[in-house]
Amino acid sequence: MARASNLPVDPARIADVIDGLAKLTEPGRPYTRRAFTALFPAGRDFLDERFRAAGLETRIDAAGNLVARRPGKKPGLGTIMLGSHSDTVPDGGRYDGIAGVAVALEVAQALADKGIELNHDLEVVDFLAEEVSIFGVSCIGSRGMAGVLPADWLLRERDGLTLEQGIRDVGGDPARIAAEARKDISAFLELHIEQGPVLETERLDIGVVTAIAGITRIEIIVEGRADHAGTTPMGSRADALAAAARLVSGIEALAKSLSEGPGHFTATVGEFSIEPNAANVVPSRARLLIDARAEERNAMDLFAASVDQLADGIARETGTTIAGPRRISDNMPTPGDPLVLDVLDAACETAGASHRRMASGAGHDTAFMAKVTRSAMIFVPCLGGRSHAPEEFAETDDIALGAAVLFNAVIQLDQKLSQESV
Amino acid sequence: MARASNLPVDPARIADVIDGLAKLTEPGRPYTRRAFTALFPAGRDFLDERFRAAGLETRIDAAGNLVARRPGKKPGLGTIMLGSHSDTVPDGGRYDGIAGVAVALEVAQALADKGIELNHDLEVVDFLAEEVSIFGVSCIGSRGMAGVLPADWLLRERDGLTLEQGIRDVGGDPARIAAEARKDISAFLELHIEQGPVLETERLDIGVVTAIAGITRIEIIVEGRADHAGTTPMGSRADALAAAARLVSGIEALAKSLSEGPGHFTATVGEFSIEPNAANVVPSRARLLIDARAEERNAMDLFAASVDQLADGIARETGTTIAGPRRISDNMPTPGDPLVLDVLDAACETAGASHRRMASGAGHDTAFMAKVTRSAMIFVPCLGGRSHAPEEFAETDDIALGAAVLFNAVIQLDQKLSQESV
Repeated sequence: MARASNLPVDPARIADVIDGLAKLTEPGRPYTRRAFTALFPAGRDFLDERFRAAGLETRIDAAGNLVARRPGKKPGLGTIMLGSHSDTVPDGGRYDGIAGVAVALEVAQALADKGIELNHDLEVVDFLAEEVSIFGVSCIGSRGMAGVLPADWLLRERDGLTLEQGIRDVGGDPARIAAEARKDISAFLELHIEQGPVLETERLDIGVVTAIAGITRIEIIVEGRADHAGTTPMGSRADALAAAARLVSGIEALAKSLSEGPGHFTATVGEFSIEPNAANVVPSRARLLIDARAEERNAMDLFAASVDQLADGIARETGTTIAGPRRISDNMPTPGDPLVLDVLDAACETAGASHRRMASGAGHDTAFMAKVTRSAMIFVPCLGGRSHAPEEFAETDDIALGAAVLFNAVIQLDQKLSQESV
Repeated sequence: MARASNLPVDPARIADVIDGLAKLTEPGRPYTRRAFTALFPAGRDFLDERFRAAGLETRIDAAGNLVARRPGKKPGLGTIMLGSHSDTVPDGGRYDGIAGVAVALEVAQALADKGIELNHDLEVVDFLAEEVSIFGVSCIGSRGMAGVLPADWLLRERDGLTLEQGIRDVGGDPARIAAEARKDISAFLELHIEQGPVLETERLDIGVVTAIAGITRIEIIVEGRADHAGTTPMGSRADALAAAARLVSGIEALAKSLSEGPGHFTATVGEFSIEPNAANVVPSRARLLIDARAEERNAMDLFAASVDQLADGIARETGTTIAGPRRISDNMPTPGDPLVLDVLDAACETAGASHRRMASGAGHDTAFMAKVTRSAMIFVPCLGGRSHAPEEFAETDDIALGAAVLFNAVIQLDQKLSQESV
């Protein structure tokens, strides 16, 4: 991949932050530093120390986010925010979220090194609990900052700890989350590893993220009839597994077809089980859970309607009953801000980074920040698309090039958004 | 269905035995009288009392079978044996096995009523533990009587009880099972409910069982790759479930095709599971267990070879690895004895029973008795093919007609086999 010979950022400092956090993992369990567990504050302390050493003012906001601030020249103009999250999944990786926090800090440091003063305040954020935490939900900090954290989530409890107390334990003030929802942010940018194989396969440096796909989960229950596997002729069965297998194949074909259209589309049957699951009994029941992700809402609607039709046809052909496929969750896609996307494309060119536009199939804090400000993300390549595993890997040079893109983008946005607000 | 107006047997006596055993069930749990549980001996005591009331001499053999004897006119000529089993599965039915024991007793009683003395000894047997018992294996008594009970099975243990002690508890003598393997039996006949829908659908009285299907269990493991369900493009996956779904469809198609050929054939994927079985992860592994049953060994060999080929093709197309489908158990079909089958056909005609030849897809004690003597079975219709469930039902008149067939067959076999051994 193309490499600018003299980047405006320091790859070694980025690597140092990533390595420092990697050392803070549960004993013998790389890389595990989950939010609301004993080790999480150690990561926060490490970051807080680094943020302050870079001359930033740090605080914990009401939602438990660690926020580090570099004041701009024009107070009241608003804040350009960069960041991601430092929490991991169990047995997670060194880069997911962490690279984005390290890069945000590096941009602030590089600006200071070069004596560049922005008009806007600049903030670096480590969002609280982006990953699905012990409380079973994700993106606590960014939802809180955007004012969309459901109030009843605070009462969620695990092993005697409520989410409310968990936020308090990291220094947040749950009672003030709603009141402190941010309205002063002018733009939000996040760098993240791709967690997919596209950039690596296409040998590109940067993905400029056009949208975070909407995620729809569809549950399907197939009801057949439990018959003796030896005595029931093949033509006299209502085999729930045979019907469910056709559904899986049909769903895969639909997803492949939609993925060839405009915009990112995936659909995966990730959960699948049958009953009674006994060797000598024709399966009487099957349950499928589809995880479908679409950049374009139209594609999702077409998919869901096609699955309904598919299920109807298979039920008729197999003598089973398939209750209407049920959307058990359904989130809209989050498009990136057009102005920010253009700035990011230009920033790639300035940094000498090869780039393409692409959607994010995974969810990110940016999806919630987009509710309160102009937002967009960039991806950097990762090895084999692997993530949420100890093998997760991204080259320091690739991350540093992403940092250079954000550095350029912040300077351009500071200019453009200053003019806008004149 | 055709009904002989004056059967040589008494339907009321048959119903009385079936009803008597049905009352001996675990409290509030129809119909559960499993071997090696506290209630089993109550059923045995009931049968022993009925057998003795019918003038039969009873004993428990070394393998724990209850055997009731009516001596023939020519000592040493050998034994014609009739019977089945009185144990049930959990939440089982009133007829599976039990009808066969009740009918065997009725044949002996009807012969006595009519003053018919056979040349052969007649024995009525209640085999021990035909169903898969707490020890996880089936047909203990008939395997023992045939001298093919694996010695190491005696050491199987459940909740502190060994199979060896379990056999001793019902009055058997495990140490003598091998020595007492029967060599004196001239013929064995068993009546059983069909446990399938064929006779009911075709409105026939009797199935003359040409063979007990061989059962082959084939395990298939599909190895794919666990990828992020949102970020991994549809074309970059190795989805173990998608591959396994194609296998299930292919196996079903193969089985349907083979079931249209000569001889009974079924194949069922009864066990099916995937890993990691998480909504947002492309399945990395799937396990299938096929239960295939064939009357003709050729059909089974063709099926197994076709499954190998199918798996190869699907692995290539899906980028998964499918280790050679593995036969984890493999039993040959047991053909019925040709002479006994002819006698049974003739006995149906004499009784005025409509009949067809058909295979048994389920396993039965007859499969083991066939290792030591001429053996065959007849089926009587049951409601909706349902079995191993409280709803299991067969009409008393249908069972009585089956008893009449066995009555006729025993008399004919006694004649034919007496001539043979002259």
